[in-house]
Amino acid sequence: MVRKNSQSVVGYTMKRNIKIVVAYDGTNFSGWQVQRDQRTVQGVIEAGLKRMHGHSVKVIGAGRTDSGVHAVGQVANFVTDIDSIPAERYKDALNSYLPHDVRALKSEEVNLSFDSRRWAKARVYRYYIFNGDVGLPHLRNYCIKLRHRPDITALNGMASLLVGEKDFTSFSAVRDGNESKIRRVYSASFYPEGNFIVFHIVANAFLWKMVRTIVGTILELEESGMGVCEFKEILEKRDRALAGATAPARGLFLERVIYDERELY
Amino acid sequence: MVRKNSQSVVGYTMKRNIKIVVAYDGTNFSGWQVQRDQRTVQGVIEAGLKRMHGHSVKVIGAGRTDSGVHAVGQVANFVTDIDSIPAERYKDALNSYLPHDVRALKSEEVNLSFDSRRWAKARVYRYYIFNGDVGLPHLRNYCIKLRHRPDITALNGMASLLVGEKDFTSFSAVRDGNESKIRRVYSASFYPEGNFIVFHIVANAFLWKMVRTIVGTILELEESGMGVCEFKEILEKRDRALAGATAPARGLFLERVIYDERELY
Repeated sequence: MVRKNSQSVVGYTMKRNIKIVVAYDGTNFSGWQVQRDQRTVQGVIEAGLKRMHGHSVKVIGAGRTDSGVHAVGQVANFVTDIDSIPAERYKDALNSYLPHDVRALKSEEVNLSFDSRRWAKARVYRYYIFNGDVGLPHLRNYCIKLRHRPDITALNGMASLLVGEKDFTSFSAVRDGNESKIRRVYSASFYPEGNFIVFHIVANAFLWKMVRTIVGTILELEESGMGVCEFKEILEKRDRALAGATAPARGLFLERVIYDERELY
Repeated sequence: MVRKNSQSVVGYTMKRNIKIVVAYDGTNFSGWQVQRDQRTVQGVIEAGLKRMHGHSVKVIGAGRTDSGVHAVGQVANFVTDIDSIPAERYKDALNSYLPHDVRALKSEEVNLSFDSRRWAKARVYRYYIFNGDVGLPHLRNYCIKLRHRPDITALNGMASLLVGEKDFTSFSAVRDGNESKIRRVYSASFYPEGNFIVFHIVANAFLWKMVRTIVGTILELEESGMGVCEFKEILEKRDRALAGATAPARGLFLERVIYDERELY
């Protein structure tokens, strides 16, 4: 007997590669990646899958978000030998094994060779800056508040310099282990949205803490009346010591992972 | 020397009555009202004011929200003898003495006879029901999720019966201490908003847990295929035992307090 998608015959279990879109409130997580004795998103998903399967299941994630960083569209995948759950209902089964601060929003079966990290063409991040008088306390873990109202045109003058294939050494973390600091930024801009200013950036990949260091640097330069010339110099000197402070994790959201190159332009 | 608004002469301190609009994330509060050994919103505001003033300051609030209930427009007032802070900047001074899950959004000086509770003509509450597939984990403390998608027309058929001056005994909590159970509801309706269904209700005042018992009862009736006739009977019988379960606190927001009767109709 042959069944569609998931075939099971005596002595042989069909494996399926399940791709999930995951959202999480990063507030109480030490980031995505499994670390000993830390509560991580990958860790709680793998723990949930282990309870479902009765054995360990390795999860691959597209973006290794830092401690406190949120996601509304992280992508991950894992190989399952459970053949009783239709792929699109897998998210509901998994959610019943997950804590409430992480949710699988979608699930689907993909080619066994699909790797959510290696196949990703780009990652999309947003950073939320509250720009009103006093913010609602319900949003305190999801944005930062500035002491002054920045000029969006000045912010965008600097952001525009990020676009292209460049060496982002100046915006990497001191302990970043990546050999090459060259990344391709497809777009980077600030725009107003209600009481917020949102920074939106798309790149093939990011260095460790790169988005937060870019945001921190641009906001510092704008506040002190500097701009494009100084930002250009920081970028070109490839020296982390020149950049500004790293903006807090709570304002940052991994919004989407792009697998189809046609979505890039 | 006479100064505007706040006069201080030797041996005499001018008192000002300050009205504040307050927002709070109710998740980690045991409600508004001060209770021994509990973290309450009134308690943390009075503690902040005590540190500012060097002596106790009594705070009056318009709505005594329950444990876990949120506010974006609670109104409170207190009398201050600090004359160095302009009334409209009082919110910033106070916020520096408050925890991050409660914020004063506005402050102004009002007549010394103003009492935020007694002068209130009506309170406006909203209840948020998530109506999508899987909700973002960032909203988990601010709404409830149903097992099925309710029919808004059916919900509104029941909600419409609430409007008017009625005896709400059926929707009062068992331990409600109010002598009269008669309240005037100005409007009550469900409406869609993005992935949510929102219940909006305006009344001169509410019995303890009244909004949540109304929401719980209407949702239960709709899910079991009942409606207007059964809801009418529950309302008219004035018997708490007939109503449904109390909906969870986390979906409820005190949105606004109305002091001007012209805003009621």
